[in-house]
Amino acid sequence: MIELQIFTTGGTIDKVYFDALSEFQVGESPLDAILREANVGIDYQLTSLMKKDSLELTDADRNIIRDAVSASEADRILITHGTDTMAETGQALIGIEGKTIVLTGAMQPARLRSTDAIFNVGFAISAARLQAPGVYIAMSGQVFPAGHVRKDRAAGQFVPD
Amino acid sequence: MIELQIFTTGGTIDKVYFDALSEFQVGESPLDAILREANVGIDYQLTSLMKKDSLELTDADRNIIRDAVSASEADRILITHGTDTMAETGQALIGIEGKTIVLTGAMQPARLRSTDAIFNVGFAISAARLQAPGVYIAMSGQVFPAGHVRKDRAAGQFVPD
Amino acid sequence: MIELQIFTTGGTIDKVYFDALSEFQVGESPLDAILREANVGIDYQLTSLMKKDSLELTDADRNIIRDAVSASEADRILITHGTDTMAETGQALIGIEGKTIVLTGAMQPARLRSTDAIFNVGFAISAARLQAPGVYIAMSGQVFPAGHVRKDRAAGQFVPD
Amino acid sequence: MIELQIFTTGGTIDKVYFDALSEFQVGESPLDAILREANVGIDYQLTSLMKKDSLELTDADRNIIRDAVSASEADRILITHGTDTMAETGQALIGIEGKTIVLTGAMQPARLRSTDAIFNVGFAISAARLQAPGVYIAMSGQVFPAGHVRKDRAAGQFVPD
Repeated sequence: MIELQIFTTGGTIDKVYFDALSEFQVGESPLDAILREANVGIDYQLTSLMKKDSLELTDADRNIIRDAVSASEADRILITHGTDTMAETGQALIGIEGKTIVLTGAMQPARLRSTDAIFNVGFAISAARLQAPGVYIAMSGQVFPAGHVRKDRAAGQFVPD
Repeated sequence: MIELQIFTTGGTIDKVYFDALSEFQVGESPLDAILREANVGIDYQLTSLMKKDSLELTDADRNIIRDAVSASEADRILITHGTDTMAETGQALIGIEGKTIVLTGAMQPARLRSTDAIFNVGFAISAARLQAPGVYIAMSGQVFPAGHVRKDRAAGQFVPD
Repeated sequence: MIELQIFTTGGTIDKVYFDALSEFQVGESPLDAILREANVGIDYQLTSLMKKDSLELTDADRNIIRDAVSASEADRILITHGTDTMAETGQALIGIEGKTIVLTGAMQPARLRSTDAIFNVGFAISAARLQAPGVYIAMSGQVFPAGHVRKDRAAGQFVPD
Repeated sequence: MIELQIFTTGGTIDKVYFDALSEFQVGESPLDAILREANVGIDYQLTSLMKKDSLELTDADRNIIRDAVSASEADRILITHGTDTMAETGQALIGIEGKTIVLTGAMQPARLRSTDAIFNVGFAISAARLQAPGVYIAMSGQVFPAGHVRKDRAAGQFVPD
């Protein structure tokens, strides 16, 4: 059985610059590149569920995420997600039994030279391995229980709520 | 009280290229830069204990590390360390009571464009926050209890021992 | 007298990711950081003229650029510029006497881990030092005379026109 | 006929960190990666002549470089080289007729996050395209004629000699 299931949903962490549009848009997830660069000894599976800015995620999208998590054979789940509605999606996953579910993302795209993405992925995977079953947001160097966290846009950090 | 005490000791993670010597040597620790880039909301203190390749660490150096950990007011300690003797230093710290002590490092200097250092620091800080008191090695995406881990040089990974 | 006057005008090369807007926008020019990182022994002056996507540049903006170039005491001028209308601005500068004027930019922001910006700046500064008076576009590893170049959007390159 | 022949010889620009040795050594040249990242529209050929620190280059090595340059069908040649004896190799190439020969390198390995290598390669390729036949050192944002340049180790720059 795989040790860690990773679901990617889009958000800032996945953004790529498209010259043709002169703008950044959600692109291929950098998760696989991050994990290969870290040369981790983890048996993980990586699945892209959607490629959206988190402000565009609908209830239908959150149902897709919830169903994918519930259906996964893995007990430990990492979800990468945009930061603007990460707290909402975390709340929507409360109640799934017997799984440790950790959401993370980034304030700056992983493809930038200076980014919080790689630190956050390492931080969140550790939380996914170590925490008891439940739903958590792992951001800003902290592990928050879902339902008790919000994004402080001005500080660029997640804080207790 | 500070939430996290970080001690740096040198090792590959801290290496800087010195043109005058045409070689890499241990330099200023990149830990502070990594934590600022990740914009963490952690109240941490950073202290440099030594700047050595871990193959050069002596028993006297390990005593300095042990004394610094014991004397720290913090309950949660991160130590960055060279990989070649990280397992030995981990073993030398066993027995310190009431503290969660996590060692990490990197196979490639943090200043490289492609490195495991930033992932590892994120991963290890999460472990330092979440684990019960004890001594751990956080490398290769895994948290090993000290005394039961070794570096597999050929694989470039830490494995159970 | 300064050896090289650099004018920045915005464009992809200068883009920064703004989390609050969930998008990239023109920010502080990275030119000074690029030149310090390259540790160049050039006596240069750096002046920001505007911070715009090049699709938004107006005739009035091009007049500002032309006036700034004409008024500069330097004989050698580098202009960083968005790629979409770099060829037009180049054409608008034809006729300024006695100065070597080189335009460059990037298809990917300089702040990305993978970018053409740093190569292009090095390439264009060399052209600005070596070319006879005139107006040139230095992109895609080539130096084109203004008025005889266009952006091939599909190829992501500048080509003769 | 190819527009640009690139010969790599080793030096700091090519250095890779080898964990097994706990040190940096000359590795695969990053030139191809740099040129692909810059997406240049140049018809170039890349040939590795040797992989040495430039302090280890012998007269025999310099003869190999000289013979390779002379035998090349290309009129424009870029040579990447360690900085410590770049000036000597430049001098050893004086007298080859009808070719523009440019040497460059870096004070910091190209694989570092912060490096002069990418700027220098862009700068030197521009010089190789634009200069009249002769031998040149393109470093520190300047193009020096071979025989009239030295490395100022303290400043980390090349200066006239």
